[in-house]
Amino acid sequence: MTIRLYDLALADDTRPSPYASRVKMALALKGLDYETVPVGFTDIPGILGGGVTKTVPVLVDGDAVVVDSFAIAEHLEARYPGPALFQPGAGGRAAARFFESYAFRVIHAEAMPIMAKAIHDRLKPEDRAYFRSTREARLGRSLEEAFADHAARLPGYRKVFEPMRHVLAHGPYFGGDSPLYVDAILYGSVTWLMRVIDLDWLGGDVALTGWYDRCRALVAR
Amino acid sequence: MTIRLYDLALADDTRPSPYASRVKMALALKGLDYETVPVGFTDIPGILGGGVTKTVPVLVDGDAVVVDSFAIAEHLEARYPGPALFQPGAGGRAAARFFESYAFRVIHAEAMPIMAKAIHDRLKPEDRAYFRSTREARLGRSLEEAFADHAARLPGYRKVFEPMRHVLAHGPYFGGDSPLYVDAILYGSVTWLMRVIDLDWLGGDVALTGWYDRCRALVAR
Repeated sequence: MTIRLYDLALADDTRPSPYASRVKMALALKGLDYETVPVGFTDIPGILGGGVTKTVPVLVDGDAVVVDSFAIAEHLEARYPGPALFQPGAGGRAAARFFESYAFRVIHAEAMPIMAKAIHDRLKPEDRAYFRSTREARLGRSLEEAFADHAARLPGYRKVFEPMRHVLAHGPYFGGDSPLYVDAILYGSVTWLMRVIDLDWLGGDVALTGWYDRCRALVAR
Repeated sequence: MTIRLYDLALADDTRPSPYASRVKMALALKGLDYETVPVGFTDIPGILGGGVTKTVPVLVDGDAVVVDSFAIAEHLEARYPGPALFQPGAGGRAAARFFESYAFRVIHAEAMPIMAKAIHDRLKPEDRAYFRSTREARLGRSLEEAFADHAARLPGYRKVFEPMRHVLAHGPYFGGDSPLYVDAILYGSVTWLMRVIDLDWLGGDVALTGWYDRCRALVAR
């Protein structure tokens, strides 16, 4: 039975979710085939008949329904052989959780003023009111105000990638010589930025763009 | 021959360096004895006769002179048996480098406006002019201006610990079930905050204080 992944879709079917992109990379690392089910924000509460989740991605893998990207990665690691997604033991999970927090608290949070309006404008019409009201509450201002002078703020934003550059100065992947789920975490974040709004997010940094291209080639969707 | 660690000292012999504290925890994890050599900022260029380093810590271990806390950890890992400091392979180093960048770019950088004046005031008199001029250049204002209203800004600063709380929700150490060099990295950062200025940095968070107490008991100097 094919693995099914419920995946957030914009009006033009762009798939921006950093969390779904993590799962796609984890599936690619395991060499697993899958199909995606595109959903809008307002579709999420009704997934699988309703009451299952408030967020995507959701993975349906035979009898298993797994919500939350980290839990999905752990499910894939437990169920499937092949390349490991984590360094061994509890330490590997702990490192991945630290990367996950960095992505959420720094890479995503600091991009939100730039990203929110761009996401809104590309949502399906029925998703826009929900998105605007929840995001404006978080941002403390209108999407348009938050987006203003983003071009001037972009060079400062790029500092969030300094920890990534520091690691890539020593090797090709965050997992070391080969990619791990920590790479999937950061791949998801960069994919989110890139797919939502066409800005020079990485500032032409060779180490970052090289790593991102390697991940993209691996995931290929 | 006893291992010697050149360690930054304040006027009252408090040892604030986050990087030296990392090394002390790495030495403790390996079960190695050592002695410290206290130095002020202005003593650093003259260490070992001069020309060796611009920063502490410096480790002298028999014929090896190692500069930079990460290089010191790698030296200890390569030379001594006992508990591993890193997860296996290049991935373990990569994870540690990511933690290191987080400490430097987020935990330290965001604390500097609060910390700089407090460090200055506790330095040996001969170290103060150097410290004030270099730090005011980085801060873009006087140490006193940067320190103003720190009490009001402290609750916001504590957000830098959210990635740490997220990891500790799942296990006792950043290394997983037992401490690794990633713990030493973050232990160094918290020790730096705590030793320089007596503020409620951790906001009473039980997971963080519990982890910090475990590390402190292990290092014990």
